[in-house]
Amino acid sequence: MSRTAALLREPEPLGPPIAHIPGPFAMRRGGSLPELEMAFETWGTLSAEADNAILILTGLSPSAHAASSAWDPTPGWWEDMIGPGRPLDTDRFFVVCVNHLGSCFGSTGPASIDPRDGRRYNLRFPELTMEDMARAARETMRSLGVQRLAALVGPSMGGMVALAYAVQFPGEVDAIALISTAARLDARTIAIHSLQREAIRVDPAWDDGDYERPPTAGMKLARKIGMSSYRTAEEWAERFGRQRTDRWGKALFGIEFEIESYLEAVARKFVDQFDANCYLYLSRAMDLFDVSEHGDCVYSALARVEAPRILVVGVESDTLFPLAQQQSLADAFARADKNVEMVALPSKQGHDAFLVDMPRFQPLIGGWLSRG
Amino acid sequence: MSRTAALLREPEPLGPPIAHIPGPFAMRRGGSLPELEMAFETWGTLSAEADNAILILTGLSPSAHAASSAWDPTPGWWEDMIGPGRPLDTDRFFVVCVNHLGSCFGSTGPASIDPRDGRRYNLRFPELTMEDMARAARETMRSLGVQRLAALVGPSMGGMVALAYAVQFPGEVDAIALISTAARLDARTIAIHSLQREAIRVDPAWDDGDYERPPTAGMKLARKIGMSSYRTAEEWAERFGRQRTDRWGKALFGIEFEIESYLEAVARKFVDQFDANCYLYLSRAMDLFDVSEHGDCVYSALARVEAPRILVVGVESDTLFPLAQQQSLADAFARADKNVEMVALPSKQGHDAFLVDMPRFQPLIGGWLSRG
Repeated sequence: MSRTAALLREPEPLGPPIAHIPGPFAMRRGGSLPELEMAFETWGTLSAEADNAILILTGLSPSAHAASSAWDPTPGWWEDMIGPGRPLDTDRFFVVCVNHLGSCFGSTGPASIDPRDGRRYNLRFPELTMEDMARAARETMRSLGVQRLAALVGPSMGGMVALAYAVQFPGEVDAIALISTAARLDARTIAIHSLQREAIRVDPAWDDGDYERPPTAGMKLARKIGMSSYRTAEEWAERFGRQRTDRWGKALFGIEFEIESYLEAVARKFVDQFDANCYLYLSRAMDLFDVSEHGDCVYSALARVEAPRILVVGVESDTLFPLAQQQSLADAFARADKNVEMVALPSKQGHDAFLVDMPRFQPLIGGWLSRG
Repeated sequence: MSRTAALLREPEPLGPPIAHIPGPFAMRRGGSLPELEMAFETWGTLSAEADNAILILTGLSPSAHAASSAWDPTPGWWEDMIGPGRPLDTDRFFVVCVNHLGSCFGSTGPASIDPRDGRRYNLRFPELTMEDMARAARETMRSLGVQRLAALVGPSMGGMVALAYAVQFPGEVDAIALISTAARLDARTIAIHSLQREAIRVDPAWDDGDYERPPTAGMKLARKIGMSSYRTAEEWAERFGRQRTDRWGKALFGIEFEIESYLEAVARKFVDQFDANCYLYLSRAMDLFDVSEHGDCVYSALARVEAPRILVVGVESDTLFPLAQQQSLADAFARADKNVEMVALPSKQGHDAFLVDMPRFQPLIGGWLSRG
C-alpha cells in the first residue's frame, strides 16, 4: 500500500484517498481543467510487477466505496463481490474503484471549486464525455503505478466508460467485463435520462445550476424515475404488490402505497448525497457517448479493443439497457474475431441485477476472473 | 338523433352535446355533486328497441371525440374503428363515447365550476372512483334512452371503468371488451402514475391545486413519463434511434435528440388540453381501483359479471398494463364459467397499440362484434 499512501494528502477522517493529477487536463469536446482530484479506494496489494490490478468503473451514482476499506469500514455498493475469496479476490488482485471524473464523491466535477476563482464550476464545467472519464481513471491508475490492467470491470455506465478506456488505450487492458451496458444508448433510454434531467431543470431551486441549496424536489423525482427503470414490474409486484402505508401522513395525493413509500425513502437518501449538476453532466455524457466515433461504425470501433479476453453480461429483464444491446456488443466483438464470452442471465431484478443478484453474479464474475 | 338533440342545451359551436344529470350525485367514497354535466358524442342511430348501443369508455386522457361527428368533423382518437363498415359499424350500432366524470372535456370534474359558489372545484372535488365514473356513464346512456348495452368497450383505464360498470350493473351489458386493462394495478404501474402526479404536485405553479395558470412544467413532465411507458423501446429505436435535432435551440441540457423533440411536442399539445387537477384525480382513481372490493376477492367480484360474451385483449409488449394482467382477468372469468375469449397480440406498440395498431385491432374488434 506504500504507493497508495504516498498519494494521500490530508484525507478526510473517513474519506477516500485522492489522486492529484496535474493539469491542464484537456477535455475531449473542448475546454480543460486546471487539475484533477480523483477519489479512489483500493483493496488487496499491488504485486511487485504491478500486473494484478483490477479497475472497477461504476454506474452513474455510486462512489468509489465499492466495499469496506481502510478508509471506510461500512459496506460498499459491491461488498459481496470484493474481498479475500470473493469474486474480485483480494488475495490475488489489487482492486481499485475510482469515483468518476464529473461525479461528486471526492473527484473533480461540476460541484467542485474551480481553483482559478474559488467558485464552484457548476455549468462552467466543460462538456464531459465517457472518454474523459476513462482517461481520468487511467491517470489515477498510473498514479498508483499501474500501467496495464489485469482486468477492467464496468457495469452500466461504467461499461460505457470501460469501452471508452479500451478503445482509447487498447494495449493496456488484459481482460474486460462489460455488464448491463451498451456501445451507445437507444431512444427509449435516452428518453428516460432526458426526463430525469428535465425533472431537475424544471425545479426552480436548480436556478440554472447556480443553486445554493439543492433542487431536492427535482432530484427526488429524477431518482424515482431512475428506480422505476432499474427494477422490474415482476419484482415489485412480489415485493410491494398493492400494500398500503400511512407512514408519510394522509395528504391528498400524498403517499398511499408501499411502493411510493419505498421510492420516497430511496430518493431522500439520494438527494442528500448526490449533486444535481453532476447528475446532469454524467447523464448527458452517457446519452452522447457513441463508441462508433472511434471508428467508421460500431463494429470497426470495437475491433480496436485488444483485450485478450472479453466478457459481456446482460440480464433478460433489463429494460433500461436491454439484452439486445449486450448481444449486439458481443456479436460485434465476435465478428472482429475477439475472444468474447456472452452471458445472458435470467435474473428478474432488471438493470440493478448486478448490484443485488449475487447468486448469479458472484460465480459468473469470479469464475471468469479465475480462468484468466 | 332526436333523443340526443333534445338533450342539447346551448352547445358550443363545435363542442359535444352535454347530458344534464340531476343531482345530488352521491360519490362512492363520500361527498356528492349537486348535478352532473356529461359530454358525449354519438355515431349511428339508436334502434327503436334501443338494443344496439355500444358504449366506449376511454383511457385517461381522451375526450368523447372518438371519431369525426356531427359536432366535430376532425378525426377522433379512434377514427378508424368507428363508422359505416368499420369495426364499430355505425350501419348497425349506435355508438356512444362519453367524457368521463372527473375529466375536463365538457364533463363535470375538478376543473368545473361548483354551481353552489361559482368557483372551480379544484381539490374540493370529492374523491373520485372508477365506480362513480361508470355510474355517471350509465346515467348518460339512460338519458339517451339506453337501458342495456349491446356492447361495452373499454381500453386502458376505460377497461377498469367497464369492469366497474359490469360489476355494479351486471344485468345491463350484453358483451364487454376489456382491452389492455387490469382488475387492479400492480406496484410498478402505481409507481409510474405516482411519479406523474408528483411531477405535477412539485411544480410550484400547481399551488396546491388553486392555480390560475396551469402548471405546465409539471404537466409536460407527467405526459412525457406517460409516453415513455405507453410505447416500447423497440418501436422508438426504429423510429427515432439516435437521430439529433436542433429544432429547439442549443441550450445546455436542452433538447438534442429527436426522441426528446417528439416528447416535447406531444407534451406541449397535452398541457394545452388537459387540466392538472383532473389528471391527478383520474390517475389516483385508477391506482385505488380494485375490483375485488365487489366480492371477497378478484375472482368472486368478476364472477358477478353477467355479460354473455367477454373479450379480453392484451398486447405482449405492454409494460404499463402487462399481458399477465389481462391473462389473469381472462383466467378468473373462465374459472367462473363465463364465456370469455382471450387474445394476446404480438404488436410492438406497447400499451398504445389499441390506438395505433389498426391492422390488428380492426379485425379483432370488428370480428368479435359481428359475431354477437
